[in-house]
Amino acid sequence: MKKENLILVTNDDGITAPGIRNLIEAVRPLGKVVVVAPDSPQSGKGHAITLGSPLRLNQVDIFDGIEAWTCSGTPVDCVKLARDKILGGRPDICVSGINHGANHSINIIYSGTMSAAMEAAIEGIPSVGFSFLNFDYDADFSIPRQVAREVTQKMLETTLPPHSLFNVNIPDLPAAEYKGIRLARQANAKWKEEFDERRDPNGKKYYWLTGEFSNQDFGSDTDVWALENGYTSLVPVQFDLTDYRLKEKLQNEWQFQ
Amino acid sequence: MKKENLILVTNDDGITAPGIRNLIEAVRPLGKVVVVAPDSPQSGKGHAITLGSPLRLNQVDIFDGIEAWTCSGTPVDCVKLARDKILGGRPDICVSGINHGANHSINIIYSGTMSAAMEAAIEGIPSVGFSFLNFDYDADFSIPRQVAREVTQKMLETTLPPHSLFNVNIPDLPAAEYKGIRLARQANAKWKEEFDERRDPNGKKYYWLTGEFSNQDFGSDTDVWALENGYTSLVPVQFDLTDYRLKEKLQNEWQFQ
Repeated sequence: MKKENLILVTNDDGITAPGIRNLIEAVRPLGKVVVVAPDSPQSGKGHAITLGSPLRLNQVDIFDGIEAWTCSGTPVDCVKLARDKILGGRPDICVSGINHGANHSINIIYSGTMSAAMEAAIEGIPSVGFSFLNFDYDADFSIPRQVAREVTQKMLETTLPPHSLFNVNIPDLPAAEYKGIRLARQANAKWKEEFDERRDPNGKKYYWLTGEFSNQDFGSDTDVWALENGYTSLVPVQFDLTDYRLKEKLQNEWQFQ
Repeated sequence: MKKENLILVTNDDGITAPGIRNLIEAVRPLGKVVVVAPDSPQSGKGHAITLGSPLRLNQVDIFDGIEAWTCSGTPVDCVKLARDKILGGRPDICVSGINHGANHSINIIYSGTMSAAMEAAIEGIPSVGFSFLNFDYDADFSIPRQVAREVTQKMLETTLPPHSLFNVNIPDLPAAEYKGIRLARQANAKWKEEFDERRDPNGKKYYWLTGEFSNQDFGSDTDVWALENGYTSLVPVQFDLTDYRLKEKLQNEWQFQ
């Protein structure tokens, strides 16, 4: 008999977010679940790690019999600490989310949800981040739960290459309009930033980051296209950032002494 | 006559670090320099942005006639604010660093230095991050300064593809042993983490992140190889994280309803 799968669950919205509770519910039939999640919201933390201060872990009992810990650091810290101090080794899979809000296209780079999953993938743990295109606290997670279970199960059943990582975004649609899961590539999109400038009671300026999403990629194989057309997008992700095409081009053009 | 180049300088070690002062010195003969850097050390902040709190900018006069600002946020925040609130548009180039310590191989993902440069590249600004393999406050920056000037000048003189980005790491070597600049790819390496477990005066545990670098890539075309063999490594970088090979493979293997 195959031993039970060990499933590490984490997120970036913090351990009390509805998204992680829904993710635990989605994957608990698939193996033994251990949760290690930030003790506070960590959205937009990207691949930050904590270098200048120490970290804390606290065990909590809020998920009905599931072993769960809060970590005082970033999502990436959670994964590192989980492996070294809680699990004492690699789990069979790491699932991150379900994020409240999109992490498609360029958003993957800013996303704590995806950075946690990427950290696990760097460690050789098959990993996936789930994000739901709905920010509401009381959003209906029925479809995201179903997607999380289906993708996690598929990953556990497949012999994947080492370091396999997926970025899954789920549209906010009524069941009747939802079309299923579609493999996609990362759309070439970005944020048009504008800072909201205000003045404090002393008259000094301060700035809030705001911005408008701008998709500049009109292919029908992108994650943005999938989401706009009723599908969940599933993007396989890797972390060799070398631009081989530019390397090739400059190999001939640039001569250094 | 071509207009003067506008050069945005930033870093992650903070505005008072010797590395940024050396970078300013390196690039000031190449155009008009504007500095926007974090007001405190931001190492390991990856691509973090500040979402939950507002940001501050303060003008400072510490670089002998160069316009300079501190920002209360992350390196990525610095670049966003520089563009929207200080420069009111795109500079001709963004240079980040000179980082105190290496950012080769997988370290690019954790690096605030490289994330600042990447943020500028996403915006369509040719960008480069420089890192020096020496952590000492009083390190000799002669070779790093020379490299930073040469690479920045080369970038300004070349018609590069949009979003061009480079990760430059400079070895800590005496001039006689230094061999020059070498184009490279990102080595497949990672950190073997171990947390140093301690107890506070109340007997509660806390953890310091420590780790050992582990290169698993023995190609002679990697950044790690270049650095170990007396060269500065120059890796062209891109930010489409799609794993096209895995996408292709799963397109046939995974069927979803």
